[in-house]
Amino acid sequence: MEKPSNRARLVKAPEHFISQELIADINANGLDENRRGFLRKGFMSALGGATAGLVAPLAIAAGEGDPAILEKQEWQTTLGKNVATMPYGVPSIYESNLIRRESPGLTRVSAASVAFTPLQGLFGTITPNGLHFERHHQGWYNINPETHRLMVNGLVKNPRVFTMNDLMRLPSVSRTHFIECGANTGLEWGNVAVPTVQYTHGMLSCCEFTGVPLKVLLEECGADLKKGKYMLAEGGDGSGMTRTINLESCLNDTIVAWSMNGEMLRPENGFPLRLVVPGVQGVSWVKWLRRLEVGDMPWNSKDEAVHYIELMPNGDHRQYASIQECKSVITTPSGGQQLLDKGFYNVSGMAWSGRGKITRVDVSFDGGNNWRTARLETPVLTKSITRFNIDWVWDGSPAIMQSRAMDDTGYIQPSIKTLRNVRGTRSIYHNNAIQSWKLDSNGEVSNVQVG
Amino acid sequence: MEKPSNRARLVKAPEHFISQELIADINANGLDENRRGFLRKGFMSALGGATAGLVAPLAIAAGEGDPAILEKQEWQTTLGKNVATMPYGVPSIYESNLIRRESPGLTRVSAASVAFTPLQGLFGTITPNGLHFERHHQGWYNINPETHRLMVNGLVKNPRVFTMNDLMRLPSVSRTHFIECGANTGLEWGNVAVPTVQYTHGMLSCCEFTGVPLKVLLEECGADLKKGKYMLAEGGDGSGMTRTINLESCLNDTIVAWSMNGEMLRPENGFPLRLVVPGVQGVSWVKWLRRLEVGDMPWNSKDEAVHYIELMPNGDHRQYASIQECKSVITTPSGGQQLLDKGFYNVSGMAWSGRGKITRVDVSFDGGNNWRTARLETPVLTKSITRFNIDWVWDGSPAIMQSRAMDDTGYIQPSIKTLRNVRGTRSIYHNNAIQSWKLDSNGEVSNVQVG
Repeated sequence: MEKPSNRARLVKAPEHFISQELIADINANGLDENRRGFLRKGFMSALGGATAGLVAPLAIAAGEGDPAILEKQEWQTTLGKNVATMPYGVPSIYESNLIRRESPGLTRVSAASVAFTPLQGLFGTITPNGLHFERHHQGWYNINPETHRLMVNGLVKNPRVFTMNDLMRLPSVSRTHFIECGANTGLEWGNVAVPTVQYTHGMLSCCEFTGVPLKVLLEECGADLKKGKYMLAEGGDGSGMTRTINLESCLNDTIVAWSMNGEMLRPENGFPLRLVVPGVQGVSWVKWLRRLEVGDMPWNSKDEAVHYIELMPNGDHRQYASIQECKSVITTPSGGQQLLDKGFYNVSGMAWSGRGKITRVDVSFDGGNNWRTARLETPVLTKSITRFNIDWVWDGSPAIMQSRAMDDTGYIQPSIKTLRNVRGTRSIYHNNAIQSWKLDSNGEVSNVQVG
Repeated sequence: MEKPSNRARLVKAPEHFISQELIADINANGLDENRRGFLRKGFMSALGGATAGLVAPLAIAAGEGDPAILEKQEWQTTLGKNVATMPYGVPSIYESNLIRRESPGLTRVSAASVAFTPLQGLFGTITPNGLHFERHHQGWYNINPETHRLMVNGLVKNPRVFTMNDLMRLPSVSRTHFIECGANTGLEWGNVAVPTVQYTHGMLSCCEFTGVPLKVLLEECGADLKKGKYMLAEGGDGSGMTRTINLESCLNDTIVAWSMNGEMLRPENGFPLRLVVPGVQGVSWVKWLRRLEVGDMPWNSKDEAVHYIELMPNGDHRQYASIQECKSVITTPSGGQQLLDKGFYNVSGMAWSGRGKITRVDVSFDGGNNWRTARLETPVLTKSITRFNIDWVWDGSPAIMQSRAMDDTGYIQPSIKTLRNVRGTRSIYHNNAIQSWKLDSNGEVSNVQVG
């Protein structure tokens, strides 16, 4: 297991990070000399080509415009592999380092822990389902969808128990939203500069979810939405996970979802049913959803009274602070990566807000003295990840790279100093501060706290 | 191998369709009685619950509003599985039937064949990478990205050979587009009513692609875009796949892409580099892309002169007809599925156009006599899949279900009769006719041709 205190240089990632699926593939398809022991050098090496980019076009040797110089490979004179060799495909063997990773020591048992999404190797906005982050309170399980049930009770005229069949006949919607654990970036509160963006921000994923709108489901059951301002969501795991959902703020866009990114949910993400509460911290997106109860006051459950509360500087605990505020992070380049050469780079990252749409992302390369506005990839969707990109020419000097997002409420992502002034240093949750990456003159990027 | 002439009832899919990954998972995690031999009954069973939906609320037995009736399962008193049990996750064991399938007999060897996407089990618009359709001309291969090169030559001032590192430093964009093989729905020309939507329409996928805009790349090489109206794209496989790209129509939105759905391309889909030509048939989205040549006339290559041409009624061959016209299909319910009960259903499908955005989808349940307008899921993106949904109450009578899409050019998806009047019956490619599914009174859905 990689220690958070080590630099997670992708080129040096240990072999046991190769997934069982890929090992199965290698076993099935043979392992020749070219493949043996190969570990993809990672996106970082993509960043560090030995040749300059836009600002200094490659010197082209004579004849390089001649197609004959492109080397033939074995495959060009033989049949390749068949279609449906993998009825359900897996990534290239050269991508075996792009995996979810647990942060060792974060919790006492790995069934109640976190596996982080490798944001440093992702592109665009969609998180592939195989890399969606995991946060379990009592592990995960293969639930049989045939026997799974969802009860709706409480302040409803017609309490109901739904089968999956019942639910999937109801009108459905498909919407793309981010999900972020409230504790994402939590170690930074204590100035524990974990090495990579996988560990600083990797409790973040973004998927297209499909399911029945909560509003439709509650109306179907005759919910009393005048008295019923709150709803309890209960998961099927052994942790007794229950969360209060504020219906006044969440009724309109919450989904009782069975699908993510086109297919059924993955078991680690709640198969066959989870609550999707856009903009709200991940713990409320209750997995393996088995019960919804409409009520007239918050439940103050274990995971609302003991966990997921925030210790403020005056000693109070802040409770029910569930919205994930506007936030962003540069993912390329980021901690543990290395630029091997001066010159042009596309610097890229993600921005998101639990309040609405991202309207702007500014990027600084000098620790916040000067800012330039990045390009936002479209469409910019509400409560979803927006990818930003900005051109940059690295002159070889040290730099501090930061991104600062704004959303359509006018909110601007704060510095860690500003956030600490209000919230102190004893919080775990809801750290949405500007992230700083230090770039050394040797090209190495590391996690620092600035300003 | 499932024969196209058989009904592909998902409940009866043979066991060898279970993927190796899932078998590995079963081997690793044990196989208890509940799991043994289980084959997921498919989305069809989700459609056919024994209880009625919206129109006839479930009769609730006394006490069903009481949480105590929800059965406890083993997991609720034990720890579940750990995080990162699967560093790269795979679908639930109950989803083992949702896989790509080859159509046997379609080609002489499986290295030059098709594996279809199981549209009947998908939701929303995104195709998970593991289920993206495959169409190879000489199989696929694990290309080493470290040694892969892209040459740009022809009418360019600075012919260049790019490494992946070089390319990934360039400015990138992320955009969601459908890809459809020109031969999709091809068997329907000959009235070969293949049984399921996987085989009628499954050479269709939709992903978020990331890469460098072709325009940026060509400008970087000093392409002469006044003389250079065309571009040859050459793939790295042994089939000698080369395709002419019309730069006048495709320059602005074509991408030289390395990523789909957030991660690197899959080997079957061109890893590490493929051309993304939005709206254009899949064969032009050249995989394992190794060369781009700018020129002043079409190349008339093998795959443009011998294949991918259309025999018209007058004996002429239509060449270079590459745009995928506006099209739609109902995926739920669709051929091979069965409605087990009368009552309310959410009828759902996909619509797309290579010309732009979908503006409307109408659905008929009586073979085209009456039409109702479906809800379109937003955002509606250009040259992308749009999911449509419509409420329907099935009264138990036989029905003919059809969908008819319109795009923002004003084009309306034609009937098969209209299309045959113009194109005859000897085409293979570019069948965008309205699809008809026949629903029998016993709930069985089958592929028919109407009108």
